[in-house]
Amino acid sequence: MSLSYESSGVRYDELDAFKRACQKAARGTADLLDGHGYREPAETRGESCYLMEADDHFLAHVEEGLGTKNLVADAVYKQSGKCFYREVAIDTVATIVNDLITCGALPTSLAMHAAVGDSGWFGDAQRTQALVDGWAEACRMSGAVWGGGETPTLKGIIEPDTICLAGSAVGRLAPKSLRIMGDAKDGDVLVFLASSGVQTNGLTLCRKIADQLPEGYATPLGFGDERTYGEALLAPSVIYVKFVRECQVRGIKLNYVSHVTGHGWRKLMRLDEPFVYEITETRDEPALFKFMMEKGPIELKEAYATYNMGVGFAAYVDPKDAEATVAAAQATGYDAWIAGRMHKDGDRKAVEIPSKGITFGGDTLQVR
Amino acid sequence: MSLSYESSGVRYDELDAFKRACQKAARGTADLLDGHGYREPAETRGESCYLMEADDHFLAHVEEGLGTKNLVADAVYKQSGKCFYREVAIDTVATIVNDLITCGALPTSLAMHAAVGDSGWFGDAQRTQALVDGWAEACRMSGAVWGGGETPTLKGIIEPDTICLAGSAVGRLAPKSLRIMGDAKDGDVLVFLASSGVQTNGLTLCRKIADQLPEGYATPLGFGDERTYGEALLAPSVIYVKFVRECQVRGIKLNYVSHVTGHGWRKLMRLDEPFVYEITETRDEPALFKFMMEKGPIELKEAYATYNMGVGFAAYVDPKDAEATVAAAQATGYDAWIAGRMHKDGDRKAVEIPSKGITFGGDTLQVR
Repeated sequence: MSLSYESSGVRYDELDAFKRACQKAARGTADLLDGHGYREPAETRGESCYLMEADDHFLAHVEEGLGTKNLVADAVYKQSGKCFYREVAIDTVATIVNDLITCGALPTSLAMHAAVGDSGWFGDAQRTQALVDGWAEACRMSGAVWGGGETPTLKGIIEPDTICLAGSAVGRLAPKSLRIMGDAKDGDVLVFLASSGVQTNGLTLCRKIADQLPEGYATPLGFGDERTYGEALLAPSVIYVKFVRECQVRGIKLNYVSHVTGHGWRKLMRLDEPFVYEITETRDEPALFKFMMEKGPIELKEAYATYNMGVGFAAYVDPKDAEATVAAAQATGYDAWIAGRMHKDGDRKAVEIPSKGITFGGDTLQVR
Repeated sequence: MSLSYESSGVRYDELDAFKRACQKAARGTADLLDGHGYREPAETRGESCYLMEADDHFLAHVEEGLGTKNLVADAVYKQSGKCFYREVAIDTVATIVNDLITCGALPTSLAMHAAVGDSGWFGDAQRTQALVDGWAEACRMSGAVWGGGETPTLKGIIEPDTICLAGSAVGRLAPKSLRIMGDAKDGDVLVFLASSGVQTNGLTLCRKIADQLPEGYATPLGFGDERTYGEALLAPSVIYVKFVRECQVRGIKLNYVSHVTGHGWRKLMRLDEPFVYEITETRDEPALFKFMMEKGPIELKEAYATYNMGVGFAAYVDPKDAEATVAAAQATGYDAWIAGRMHKDGDRKAVEIPSKGITFGGDTLQVR
């Protein structure tokens, strides 16, 4: 039987019901901005970053977490003695700031939330310092000050011997014209920016695969990649802040962007308005994903429905800006390419990947 | 043997070492504000809220968490069927915003971080709705929009059957003169605002006491209070935002404020500059604290070193503003009184409570 993400134990239904209850209650508090000189802009709810609008700027606010990726780092550390907490810290910051920049804001400050089940966790000086160093390095990669944080011991809430990593970011967006509005349109081009691996998504299933392997995370990846499975999983996430900043500097208008995380390539159709996204320039799957598809096994369509498959960030731009967008990405160190186009087809919403024989209908993405 | 907080299993030493490493690394990222039109103001590091300074405003950013208080709610729910997740949500927001207002900013937006070990946690519709309703109610009490959040399932990190609650807040502070600077001085008066109970501090020790009692959380409190121990512990925290806002409206300058949390009344001397704080107007301890001192047992001095003992927030004001400060608090619904004074005594730093026969030297507060 092939593996799917739902079978790995994460039940999106109950989670989504809670999310919807939160979103409904949260919308009811928008009037509270009045007393602060802000208002809630149209269409910020449901996006990856919350925006508040003033006359001359927006404030952006994101709270995000790493997920279960540090459990992979814990297992690899135990098995091989190699500590990946620098990488895990970068991952945590990446998941926060890559959400924040989807509205066009750049992160100004970052705060850490690091909760342990036993304060003895911090007694491993090498691991602790790697976490601290990685967080500071990621702040530098994001251009954001490390503004503070909270590091509680939560015995009975956090499992012993592990840590729960999360945090928040704040950004100020001015002039307001820099806001990424979701005004992508018929004929716009999708520019893809490469990921470094799974980044911070789908780790529960990754861990399940490791459990099935005799050598676990120490299994060589193969497919021309000399790393072990664990090493490849723990490659730190790419932080895409510099790309968005460079587009601002060069005056390239990003009509929309998508941080490709949970729900894999289905996330490409997260705009409310229906479009068909045709991805024509695909690449061979990175070795890590080939390995997981083989070992899981995970079927190709399920893999694209769950993982980023080598694409961490997508920008939706006018065709005339497509080459310039790729150039901006490459100039700031990203691997980027023109990947496809979006077009109107009545009320139809879909992601089509002809070279892989995959189509995702709009009904396969219930959560935004 | 009487109980102390250190004996309850929270080792501040290792935690504090990590905090110091974070603070050192975080200070090294201050230059990253340059690219955003902000700078780091003097003396924001070490305060409860991180501030960024622009020419005409400050931005404030706080990340905080509930701690282990929801474990009390879980145990009481199991024992009595009474659900306190509305209260626990208010507690979480309170711990965030009461830290944020210490710099004079008012919270503009709040984000929730609610992580569970099993998404089935959200299957209890009553509890889930109480959490959502409580969070929204607390946003309204704080005057802040509920801007978003993150609700991950973290199997293997969060213990099954429980939840890790935290979040962040953002505030904009303008005009800049409203900043609470910590410029309290010789002769300033301390105004105390009452708490509702333990609020969100010292819950590990509270739980240990419950474990020792035959009836656990169902034990009647006594001392003239008809609630059970569990009900008293779960009284929602007081949110002090309206007090700070009212002082701003009335033009009352708060020279300093302290959110009385961990380290109890020792927190009253959290200013770097040495002063002696003499608390002359004390009250009889609230029934909850009497109960804990008796049942623990906890010695009086240890209790004041750990718990807020009925005082959740302290404002340090010029003597001429003392009555007006009390009036501002009372007008916005708080129980407040003039409690004492601070004075210079060379390099000596201490909190003195003559009516209780307690003195805390500056060496008893290592962490800020």
